[in-house]
Amino acid sequence: MVETKTESLVNSSISTIEISTPGRGFQEISGELQEFVRQSGVKIGVCHVFLRHTSASLLITENADPDVRRDLENFISALAPDGDPAYFHRMEGPDDMPAHIRSVLTCSEITLPIRGGRLALGTWQGVYLWEHRTRPHQRRLELTIIGS
Amino acid sequence: MVETKTESLVNSSISTIEISTPGRGFQEISGELQEFVRQSGVKIGVCHVFLRHTSASLLITENADPDVRRDLENFISALAPDGDPAYFHRMEGPDDMPAHIRSVLTCSEITLPIRGGRLALGTWQGVYLWEHRTRPHQRRLELTIIGS
Amino acid sequence: MVETKTESLVNSSISTIEISTPGRGFQEISGELQEFVRQSGVKIGVCHVFLRHTSASLLITENADPDVRRDLENFISALAPDGDPAYFHRMEGPDDMPAHIRSVLTCSEITLPIRGGRLALGTWQGVYLWEHRTRPHQRRLELTIIGS
Repeated sequence: MVETKTESLVNSSISTIEISTPGRGFQEISGELQEFVRQSGVKIGVCHVFLRHTSASLLITENADPDVRRDLENFISALAPDGDPAYFHRMEGPDDMPAHIRSVLTCSEITLPIRGGRLALGTWQGVYLWEHRTRPHQRRLELTIIGS
Repeated sequence: MVETKTESLVNSSISTIEISTPGRGFQEISGELQEFVRQSGVKIGVCHVFLRHTSASLLITENADPDVRRDLENFISALAPDGDPAYFHRMEGPDDMPAHIRSVLTCSEITLPIRGGRLALGTWQGVYLWEHRTRPHQRRLELTIIGS
Repeated sequence: MVETKTESLVNSSISTIEISTPGRGFQEISGELQEFVRQSGVKIGVCHVFLRHTSASLLITENADPDVRRDLENFISALAPDGDPAYFHRMEGPDDMPAHIRSVLTCSEITLPIRGGRLALGTWQGVYLWEHRTRPHQRRLELTIIGS
């Protein structure tokens, strides 16, 4: 442990982000989140990000080589294949149940630390919205900052 | 981003929920969580839910069609089969190690946003306790609300 | 629900932990986290732990029988094998992409409840840093306590 600091904690900020996805794939949202933190004026604390959907995910992963996301997509597609005849839930098509499985195996919500007025992400960490449905969707995120 | 709001943050509420599970399966706890938020009087903030066990999970998933949970159970049972001879840890039976694997692949704790005095879950989002052991268990959750 | 308590919330504490890993495997950090909570003086609230890397994980799992971690390692190694020819991302060797997959299937950040000045972990819950790379790495955690 290299540093401990205690101070009064008196602010919260909330916001909503709406994102239009073009279908299955990744959209980086690190920039939007950093901007929200900047606007809040909070220097130290946490930023909570919540996705109000069960067929997409929030993801923290490597932000430099697009092949990482390509491999993640290939991996999860093989693990929970579209159109698997084993699924009972297929109301909305072959990508319906796989989207729920992908959501459960990854994250619907994440909390990120704020330090010096910015998200303290590692150099290689990006935050992504991972759309699991093949068709375009409108996705809504609820953001909450708590800090000082 | 459509809305940003800053205000003083001065309240926390805590609670404990004990749940008796009848064995492997899902129990929705969204109602209990909403009631706790209501009682706390907090209008804006977050509600943290923590499961004090390593052989059950907390889950956010689709709340309308029970086939989604049936497919999730089938999927994870196939991924981490009971009684797999590869497991070294089998003290408490064939469902012992699979329960720990299921716990690690899903969640032990979740944070949910509070807006307008209620959890801001999406329309199709339900919060579930997912029991992974085949026999009945007593499960304990620690709830913490931070907000104003 | 057995207990609800509301009080003013005025403190935050932050810290950074640096951990040297000897390569793939598990290191328990529950003791370090408990010590940070003790030093903060916070009695009720939450402790957020954030890993600034995408090729290692934070893990809550059974802390008594080392065979549980051995089985977890075997399970995930079989699910995302090193050197799989399907991976496009292999800049840093055969364990590079599997490390990112393992990170995505588990957790990069966790929030833990504080009660009575200690983390309210279950009896059998330990918190671990799970190194996914085969060679030694330096890992950094950002800790944030919010409570009173």
